[in-house]
Amino acid sequence: MTENKLYNVAIVGATGAVGQKILTILEDKDFPLNELKLLSSKRSAGKKVSFKNKELLVEEAVPESFKGVDIALFSAGGSVSKQLAPEAVKHGAVVIDNTSAYRMAENVPLVVPEVNKEDISNHQGIIANPNCSTIQMVAALKPLQDAFGINRVIVSTYQAVSGAGAQANQELEKQAQQFLDGEDLTAELLPVKGDEKHYPIAFNALPQIDVFQDNGYTFEEMKMINETKKIMHAPELSVAATCVRLPFFTSHAESIYVEVDKEGVKVADLWEALESAEGVVLEDDPASQTYPTPLSAANKESVFVGRVRKDLDNDKGFHMWVVSDNLMKGAALNTVQIAESLIKNNWL
Amino acid sequence: MTENKLYNVAIVGATGAVGQKILTILEDKDFPLNELKLLSSKRSAGKKVSFKNKELLVEEAVPESFKGVDIALFSAGGSVSKQLAPEAVKHGAVVIDNTSAYRMAENVPLVVPEVNKEDISNHQGIIANPNCSTIQMVAALKPLQDAFGINRVIVSTYQAVSGAGAQANQELEKQAQQFLDGEDLTAELLPVKGDEKHYPIAFNALPQIDVFQDNGYTFEEMKMINETKKIMHAPELSVAATCVRLPFFTSHAESIYVEVDKEGVKVADLWEALESAEGVVLEDDPASQTYPTPLSAANKESVFVGRVRKDLDNDKGFHMWVVSDNLMKGAALNTVQIAESLIKNNWL
Repeated sequence: MTENKLYNVAIVGATGAVGQKILTILEDKDFPLNELKLLSSKRSAGKKVSFKNKELLVEEAVPESFKGVDIALFSAGGSVSKQLAPEAVKHGAVVIDNTSAYRMAENVPLVVPEVNKEDISNHQGIIANPNCSTIQMVAALKPLQDAFGINRVIVSTYQAVSGAGAQANQELEKQAQQFLDGEDLTAELLPVKGDEKHYPIAFNALPQIDVFQDNGYTFEEMKMINETKKIMHAPELSVAATCVRLPFFTSHAESIYVEVDKEGVKVADLWEALESAEGVVLEDDPASQTYPTPLSAANKESVFVGRVRKDLDNDKGFHMWVVSDNLMKGAALNTVQIAESLIKNNWL
Repeated sequence: MTENKLYNVAIVGATGAVGQKILTILEDKDFPLNELKLLSSKRSAGKKVSFKNKELLVEEAVPESFKGVDIALFSAGGSVSKQLAPEAVKHGAVVIDNTSAYRMAENVPLVVPEVNKEDISNHQGIIANPNCSTIQMVAALKPLQDAFGINRVIVSTYQAVSGAGAQANQELEKQAQQFLDGEDLTAELLPVKGDEKHYPIAFNALPQIDVFQDNGYTFEEMKMINETKKIMHAPELSVAATCVRLPFFTSHAESIYVEVDKEGVKVADLWEALESAEGVVLEDDPASQTYPTPLSAANKESVFVGRVRKDLDNDKGFHMWVVSDNLMKGAALNTVQIAESLIKNNWL
């Protein structure tokens, strides 16, 4: 790290839910920031956003926007990333992309710093930020992989509506009020904006996140399966996922079954591995009803783990409950942490 | 079945959520009913309840209440069942108990008619109705057990607040309104009425249903594990459960992983087995976004199954999403169906 060097950072999608969280995190952190450039679609350009008591003008993102930019943080949807990330790279920026556009590309590192920070060093201009539900799972699995080896993961998710964007929050709020007022619920967005049918999310559960693939799994489920293997460098790891959207605003929760390689592992061994893991906080004491919930994890930086227990039939099987703020560690915070790793390790 | 014979039925807990559902079902069904006796705690006695356009007086349940009663349906909590079910049996009634008081007792059949109707014939006066989350799971597992054999089940549940009683519905509704009004949420009941701490359920998820056991599992989880083995006559079946309370009023949903014994089984084979199973309705077409949800299953009699797919790593592993109204098939309907089986097969 060049001492005292400051960096020009661009945020593409600055007015979106994740873009706004990135701004909050950059304000709070001691990030070596020189110039901050806020970019968006034509539609949102011209808006003003406050940052450290200054008003910043949001500009339309075009190829020329990236001149002089060192690090460009993209979260404006896959199509924007596909179009503009290569342009940013051409202009000399390193892109950290928060969409699914490049995650599975061979020459693009997919990174959760606590898990595979070193992969950043191989970047060719673009580094991908994993899917929110993947990030918190691998953060909790990594210490177990290191300590005991793992060979099998089965996860069922409990995911907040904010993963589908700020509009989904509004839809949940509107439908909840409609229900309390005795009105019919109007569903216009969820489960998937561009899909054919829409179902109410208020006081309901939708077993579909993102569109269905030919194999009967949703794209969200396939993201969890494929991204986990890539991030953990474990192509042989068996991963199965069922992803469900639920009526809360913030944080994803996950019921995870994991099988370890080592024999004779105890719950106390998992606790020890999890407690000493970077970015993970153990909240697990049944006697005092201590476990994380979506509300308790909201606006926090960590991945919270509770309900750790041994399978009653399989000596190598364990169950746990993993909760994290999907916009923080699940998106904005992990993006900023990748940028910090880039800088700290001279990997720009 | 004695032709045209009519039966005297008592409902203990007639003013509760399940008792009310039982009344609705008895009104709708062509049940061979002679006299209907509504019983309750001292507190609710004296209330009037309408049944088939008549007003019925609710009486306090005491041992003598069961004189002349053929079938007594209990859903007034475990302590009431422990106290009064033996008294009802002494007076010649057959008890169908909807609490956990007798479920694991050796001489008490635990019955889901579609799964183990014949067990009713061994009753010694008391027949137990399983836990709501167990009933819908075994209804979906039974056709797979019959067709392919099964050896392993891992379930994560998504459970409605009404499983914790009518007061829990009121708590969710109140908290949802508090949230929309920008007020702090007051939690007084959930996750468990008698437990020390209470957490908000509105816009949240609570990974605790019923109290914790010494092994780190909740009592709800142990109910699912133990009851499933008993009902399916499968002591060697590996069953693991994680039970989570969610902010919706009606229906439990379950993400179930199941391993079959037979090799080469396909999703189409599971569809066929499920479609021909009694009490089960297959709602599974990803192309048209067809799958059951808590709202779509509410007030219906069946167990709905969707999202059936093969595990991507294990040829014998399958995932499915099972939804049913927790007060209907999960409680009141199954109770009435046991009574119907009793009568139809002359097992009284």
